[in-house]
Amino acid sequence: MDAIHSPGRPDSHTSKGSKEDPMALNTLPTVSASHNENAAHHGDPIAATSSFEMRKTTSDMRNTRGMLGLHPQAPIDEEHDLAEQQDWWWAKVRIALREPFAEFFGTMILVLFGDGAVAQVLLSAGQKSAPGGDGYGNYQSINWGWGLGVMLGIYVAGDSGAYLNPAITFTNCVLRKLPWRRFPIYLLAQFLGGFVAGPGIRTVPPSPTATAGIFCTYPQPFDTKSGQFFDEFIASAILMFVIYALKDDSNKGQFSASGAWFPLAMFFLIFGIGACFGWQTGYAINLARDFGPRLMSYAVGYGHEVWSAGGYYFWIPIVAPFCGCLFGGILYDVFLYTGPDSLMNQPWFGLKDLARPKAAIMERVEKQKAEGLV
Amino acid sequence: MDAIHSPGRPDSHTSKGSKEDPMALNTLPTVSASHNENAAHHGDPIAATSSFEMRKTTSDMRNTRGMLGLHPQAPIDEEHDLAEQQDWWWAKVRIALREPFAEFFGTMILVLFGDGAVAQVLLSAGQKSAPGGDGYGNYQSINWGWGLGVMLGIYVAGDSGAYLNPAITFTNCVLRKLPWRRFPIYLLAQFLGGFVAGPGIRTVPPSPTATAGIFCTYPQPFDTKSGQFFDEFIASAILMFVIYALKDDSNKGQFSASGAWFPLAMFFLIFGIGACFGWQTGYAINLARDFGPRLMSYAVGYGHEVWSAGGYYFWIPIVAPFCGCLFGGILYDVFLYTGPDSLMNQPWFGLKDLARPKAAIMERVEKQKAEGLV
Amino acid sequence: MDAIHSPGRPDSHTSKGSKEDPMALNTLPTVSASHNENAAHHGDPIAATSSFEMRKTTSDMRNTRGMLGLHPQAPIDEEHDLAEQQDWWWAKVRIALREPFAEFFGTMILVLFGDGAVAQVLLSAGQKSAPGGDGYGNYQSINWGWGLGVMLGIYVAGDSGAYLNPAITFTNCVLRKLPWRRFPIYLLAQFLGGFVAGPGIRTVPPSPTATAGIFCTYPQPFDTKSGQFFDEFIASAILMFVIYALKDDSNKGQFSASGAWFPLAMFFLIFGIGACFGWQTGYAINLARDFGPRLMSYAVGYGHEVWSAGGYYFWIPIVAPFCGCLFGGILYDVFLYTGPDSLMNQPWFGLKDLARPKAAIMERVEKQKAEGLV
Amino acid sequence: MDAIHSPGRPDSHTSKGSKEDPMALNTLPTVSASHNENAAHHGDPIAATSSFEMRKTTSDMRNTRGMLGLHPQAPIDEEHDLAEQQDWWWAKVRIALREPFAEFFGTMILVLFGDGAVAQVLLSAGQKSAPGGDGYGNYQSINWGWGLGVMLGIYVAGDSGAYLNPAITFTNCVLRKLPWRRFPIYLLAQFLGGFVAGPGIRTVPPSPTATAGIFCTYPQPFDTKSGQFFDEFIASAILMFVIYALKDDSNKGQFSASGAWFPLAMFFLIFGIGACFGWQTGYAINLARDFGPRLMSYAVGYGHEVWSAGGYYFWIPIVAPFCGCLFGGILYDVFLYTGPDSLMNQPWFGLKDLARPKAAIMERVEKQKAEGLV
Repeated sequence: MDAIHSPGRPDSHTSKGSKEDPMALNTLPTVSASHNENAAHHGDPIAATSSFEMRKTTSDMRNTRGMLGLHPQAPIDEEHDLAEQQDWWWAKVRIALREPFAEFFGTMILVLFGDGAVAQVLLSAGQKSAPGGDGYGNYQSINWGWGLGVMLGIYVAGDSGAYLNPAITFTNCVLRKLPWRRFPIYLLAQFLGGFVAGPGIRTVPPSPTATAGIFCTYPQPFDTKSGQFFDEFIASAILMFVIYALKDDSNKGQFSASGAWFPLAMFFLIFGIGACFGWQTGYAINLARDFGPRLMSYAVGYGHEVWSAGGYYFWIPIVAPFCGCLFGGILYDVFLYTGPDSLMNQPWFGLKDLARPKAAIMERVEKQKAEGLV
Repeated sequence: MDAIHSPGRPDSHTSKGSKEDPMALNTLPTVSASHNENAAHHGDPIAATSSFEMRKTTSDMRNTRGMLGLHPQAPIDEEHDLAEQQDWWWAKVRIALREPFAEFFGTMILVLFGDGAVAQVLLSAGQKSAPGGDGYGNYQSINWGWGLGVMLGIYVAGDSGAYLNPAITFTNCVLRKLPWRRFPIYLLAQFLGGFVAGPGIRTVPPSPTATAGIFCTYPQPFDTKSGQFFDEFIASAILMFVIYALKDDSNKGQFSASGAWFPLAMFFLIFGIGACFGWQTGYAINLARDFGPRLMSYAVGYGHEVWSAGGYYFWIPIVAPFCGCLFGGILYDVFLYTGPDSLMNQPWFGLKDLARPKAAIMERVEKQKAEGLV
Repeated sequence: MDAIHSPGRPDSHTSKGSKEDPMALNTLPTVSASHNENAAHHGDPIAATSSFEMRKTTSDMRNTRGMLGLHPQAPIDEEHDLAEQQDWWWAKVRIALREPFAEFFGTMILVLFGDGAVAQVLLSAGQKSAPGGDGYGNYQSINWGWGLGVMLGIYVAGDSGAYLNPAITFTNCVLRKLPWRRFPIYLLAQFLGGFVAGPGIRTVPPSPTATAGIFCTYPQPFDTKSGQFFDEFIASAILMFVIYALKDDSNKGQFSASGAWFPLAMFFLIFGIGACFGWQTGYAINLARDFGPRLMSYAVGYGHEVWSAGGYYFWIPIVAPFCGCLFGGILYDVFLYTGPDSLMNQPWFGLKDLARPKAAIMERVEKQKAEGLV
Repeated sequence: MDAIHSPGRPDSHTSKGSKEDPMALNTLPTVSASHNENAAHHGDPIAATSSFEMRKTTSDMRNTRGMLGLHPQAPIDEEHDLAEQQDWWWAKVRIALREPFAEFFGTMILVLFGDGAVAQVLLSAGQKSAPGGDGYGNYQSINWGWGLGVMLGIYVAGDSGAYLNPAITFTNCVLRKLPWRRFPIYLLAQFLGGFVAGPGIRTVPPSPTATAGIFCTYPQPFDTKSGQFFDEFIASAILMFVIYALKDDSNKGQFSASGAWFPLAMFFLIFGIGACFGWQTGYAINLARDFGPRLMSYAVGYGHEVWSAGGYYFWIPIVAPFCGCLFGGILYDVFLYTGPDSLMNQPWFGLKDLARPKAAIMERVEKQKAEGLV
C-alpha cells in the first residue's frame, strides 16, 4: 500500500539535485534503474560551508526539517531549489513540509478512491436504473478502487517515498534502518490524509435510484443542483490534481508516469473516477464530451428534453469542470508543485497582478513573444 | 481526461526537428524522460533569416498559424517537414491545422468509445440472448469505455498536447502560462470532435434482442444488411485509424505506444472495440478470425446454417473489414499522417496514378526492386 | 487486430542482423524508439556479391522467398542466421517460410483465445455450479479473450509484422507501399491459422453443468478421462508455446515482452488461459499448484475424496502438464525458434541421440562442465 | 505460469556481479534487452584460483551448491556477495539455497493468491450482504487471482528463473539444455511452496454471511477476534513481503518492478489482496486508511457503532497491520534479501542489540548522523 526504499539505501530521500549542487550535503541521490552510478554517500560538511553564500536559507531550512524529523535536505529538483521564487515564505513552508504534504495528499487520494468505490457500490446496490440494471459496481469494483487509489496515491506522493501506510513506515524503521524520528510526522500526515478524505465521500447521498444517459450525462434524481455541481466539481478537481501530479517530473521519487506511461496512467485515472465518483452525475468532467454530443443529440431530434432534463442540469457539465479543474490545479500547485512556471509559485500566488491587469497581460504577451510561443 | 505540459515548459508544443533545423525558431524541443538535455529556448530570429531559402513556406505558415492562435512552428518531424510532398496545398493545410486536427480526432475517439460503451450497456440491458445471458456489459464496462477512450484519444492526439478537454486547456492557461490565444481554437476542435462523434453512436438500433455465435460472428436479428455492413465498417475503420496512430512515431508528443507498448495498447484497443462497438455484429473485423473458423465449423458438420444465418450475413465480415480498414487508414493519412511513404501524401492523394495504371505499377515495382523489397 | 509498419518504412521487414552482416542486402533495419540511427537503406548489390562465400545458401534462399512474395532476406537474428544448424533442410524451410509460419501461429493464438472465450461464455451460460453461481464469464470476458488473443498473437507473430488480419495487410498495400506480392501468402497463412484454431474449440463439450474445487482442480462431470487429459494438455501446450514466444528475443519484431514486460505479459497469459480454456478442468497446468495443495488438503482432513473425485482425476494435473508443455515447446522450437540452444534445432531434432543415449549424456555433461553450469 | 531462459542462454542463472568480479567463474551474465553485449561464456578456472584469497568460502559454497544440483555460482549481487555479513552461517545457508528459497516463496505466493481467489469466490457465492449483493467475486475473479499470483510470484522468485512449475522446468531440461540435475531441487521447492500455501487458505471459514462498511472495514460476523486479527495479519504480511520483493533490485533476475513499474505492480498487488484475501475483514491493512476515516465518520455523527461494531473490532486494523507487515518484512529479509542494510542480515538477526539497547541506539544515531540522514 505504499513504496519503500530501494535496497541499499537506508532512506528513500531523493535529493535529485545532489549531483551538481555543492549544497547537497550528505544526500543519497536517487538510484533509479537507469542511472545508479552516483550512489555514493556525500558526507563532507566542509563542502557545504564553502558554498554558504549560494543559498542562505539552507541552514535554517535544515534545522527546521531536522526538528520535524525529516531528512535535512528536502527532495526537490536542483533547478527548482535554486529558483528565485523559492525565497517566498510559502515556498519555504512547502519545502520544509515537503514529505508530510506528499504523504498527506497521497493518502488522501488513496482513501478518496478506495472509500469512494466502497460507497458507490454499497449505496447503489441493486439499483435497477443503473446501466446494466444492477447497481453501480460489485465487489470487484472495490478492488479496482483500492488498487487504483494506491497507484495514483503513489504517483501523487512521489518524493516522500510514498509509504501511505504507518505500518510500512514502521517496518522500515525496524528492519531497514529508516530513522525512527521520521515516523511521527509521517504517521501524522498519513492519518490526516485519511481523516480529511472522509468529507469527500459524504457527498454521496443515500438515495437508491438513478438514471443515466447515453449521449451525455444526466444526474441522479435525488441530486440537488448544488449537489450536482459539487459532484462534477470534485471529480474535475481530482482529475486535474492527479494529472498535474503525473506530469510533475520533479515529484516522482523513483516512480514516473510521464512519457509512455502517461496514457496508461490516464486509463486508470479515468476508470477510477468512474468507478469511485461516477454514480451521481455520470462524471461528465468535460465540455467536449458532454456538450458536443448533447447538441448533436438535439440536432438529430432528441427534443427539448436534452436541455430540461435534471432541472436544466445541462449547464453544470459546462461550468463545473472549469471550476473544478482550476481548483484541483491550484491545490496541486500551492502544496506540491515547486516549478517556476506556475502562477501559484509567484509571490502572493500571482494575485498582485489582479491590481494591475493591463500591465500584467502586456508583460505576459511580451514574454511569450520573446520565447517564440506566439 | 487529457494531457498537459511537462513542467518547466509553458507550452507542450513539440517541435521535434528543432535540434538540427536552423528554421526551428523559438521552439521548445520535446523534453522526454530520457533526453531532456536540450530544453533550452531558442530565441534568435537571425538564425531563422539566414536559412530563408531552405523552406520558403515557413514564413507564410507561421503567419497563418499565429493568426489561428497556434504556436508559430507546427510540431511535425523535421524529415517530414522538409519532405517534398509537403509543398502540396493540402499538406500545408494539414500542417497549419495540425493541433486542431489532432484535438478533433482525439476527442472524437474519446467520445466514440465512451458513448459507445454507454449506448451498448444501456440498450442491451437485460438482453437474455447476450453471452452470459444478461446484456452486453454493466456499469463497469462504461468505465472501461471512457478509460480506453481517453487512453486511445491521447495516442491519436499526440502532438497537440492531447488536452481533449476545454477545462484542462483553461486551467493550463490560468496556472501554467499556456498562451490564452491557444484556447479558442482548441476549444472549437474539442467541441467539434465531441459533436461529430454523435452519429457513430446513432448506428445503434434500439432493439433489445440479440444472438451471438461461437465460431464466428452472427449479427443481431434487428440489423438490416446495410446496418450490418456499416457496423463492421465503422469498427474496422476505428481499428485501422488507431493502429496508424499508434505506429505514427511523428505524432506522439511525449507519449509513445510503439515498441514494447504496442501489444498492450492493442489489447486495450480490441477490448475497447468489443466493449463499445461489439454488440450488433460481434465485431468480426477480420477475415482470418471469421471466415477461417466458419469454414472449419462447416467442415466439421455445422451445416448450411453457418452460411445462411443472418440472411447470408457471412460475406459481410469478409468484405466490410477491407472497406473499413481502408477508409480508416485514408482518414488518418489525409488528416494526421505527414510521412512521405503514404499514398495519401502524394499530390492529389495519388489519384493521378489511376489515369495511368500500368506506368504507375511499373514505377512502383521498379522502386521496390531498387530498395530490395522484392 | 494486428500490427503495421512503423511509419517511414514501406516494409516492416526487420532484418536484425543488417548492421554487421555484409549479406544484409537492401534491408531496412529495425527502427525501434531507442535506436533508429541506422534507418538508411542499403541498396548496393556489390556488397552482397563480395561476401558470397560467407553463406552459400543465401542466393537460393532469396530466390525461394522472392517467389513466395516475401522479402528476399528473412528476418532472423544474424547470429542465428550464421549458426551451423541452419544448414539443415528443415532450418531452411523454417527460414524460407518464416513470416507465413509467424502469421499462421499468431492468428491461431488469436482465434484460439478469442473463440475459446466465446465458447466458454456461451456454453456455460447460467451454469449454477460455476464459481459465483452464474456461468464461466459474461460478455466482458469475451472482450478480454479477444484483447488477450491479439496481444499474445502479436508476441507470437513478432517478426512477420504481426498483421494477423488480411484487411490490415490489404490497407498497407494500398496506402503504405507494402508490396502487393506479400498479400497472397500472408492471406493464406492468416486464413489457415484461423481455420486450424477451430478444432481446439471443438474440445468444449456442450454440457451445461460443472463443479469446481478450491484447493485443487476438479473436472466437469461430463468430461471423459481422455477429455480431461486433453484439456490440460492443450492449456499446458499453449502456456509453454507462448512463454517460449515471449522469451524469444530473436522473434520480436518491434515488440518485446522480455525484461520488465514479462511478468505483465504472464498475467495476461494466465488470465487468458483461465478466461478462454479454464472451464472444464479448472486449468491446473501445474503440479506444484495442484498436487501440493491437494496433498495438504488431504493432510488436514479432507478425506479420500480429494483423490477419488472425478474418477481419480488427480493424476491428470500431474501428468498432462508435462506432456502438454513439452508438446507446446516442441511446436514452438520446430516452427519458430531459430536459436542454437534448442534440441529441436539439431539435425533430425536431436533424435539421433536416442540411438546412443549414454554417449549423448556424457557429451552433454561434458559440455555443461566446460560452460561451468554444473 | 513461470519464466524460462532467454534464448541463447542454456541457464537462466543470473550472476549479476560477473562483469567486475574475478571470482565469477563460468557464469552467464544476465542478458537483458538493453545490455546484452557481454553474453560470452566465461570458462577459465585459472581466473578463479588467482583471486582465491578474496573470498575463502567460495570453494565450499560451490561444492555445496553443486551437490544440490544448482549452478556453482549463486545469483546474488556482487556487492552483496562480498559484504561482511555474508560470512554469518545463516547468510551462507541463504546463498546456498538461493534458488530453492526463491522458487518456494514464488510458488507459495502464486498458490496463495490463486487458491485465495477460488476460496473467496466459492465460499461467498450468493452472499446477499456482499457489496453489490451477490458474493465476493465471480469466475473472472479467479482468473484475476491466478494471473496476479503468477505475476507476483515471478517478482518474488526473480533470481531463480521464476519457473514456479515443474512442467516448465522439465520442458527446459528436455528442449533447452537446462541441466537435468537442476530438476529435483526445483521440483521439491515448487511442490513444498504449493503444499505450505494450503494453511493460509484454511483461515477462510465456511460461513456464508457477511457485512461490509463504507468508511472503514468491518469484519464478517462469523469471524472470531483471533480470526479477525489473523486475517489482517496475513494480508499485511503478504503486502510487506511482496513490496520488499518488488523493491529488491538484487532479486530481479530479468524482471524488474522498480521505477516506473512499481505503481503498476502495486495496483495488481492491492487488487489481488482484495480479490483473494479481502472477504473477511475487508482488508484494512492500513491505519491511515481505516482509523482516519473511522474517526471522521464518528466526528460527523455516525455514533458509537463505529467503535463497537464487530465486538470492538476497530483496534484490529490498527494493531494487526504493524504486526503483519513486520512479520512479512522479516520473512523476506531472513530468506531472500541479501543486502547489508537489513537488520535481519546482521549476525543473529540483530537480536544481540536487545541486550544492550542504549549503546545500540547511540551507535545507530551516530551512524545516521555520519550519513547525513538526521
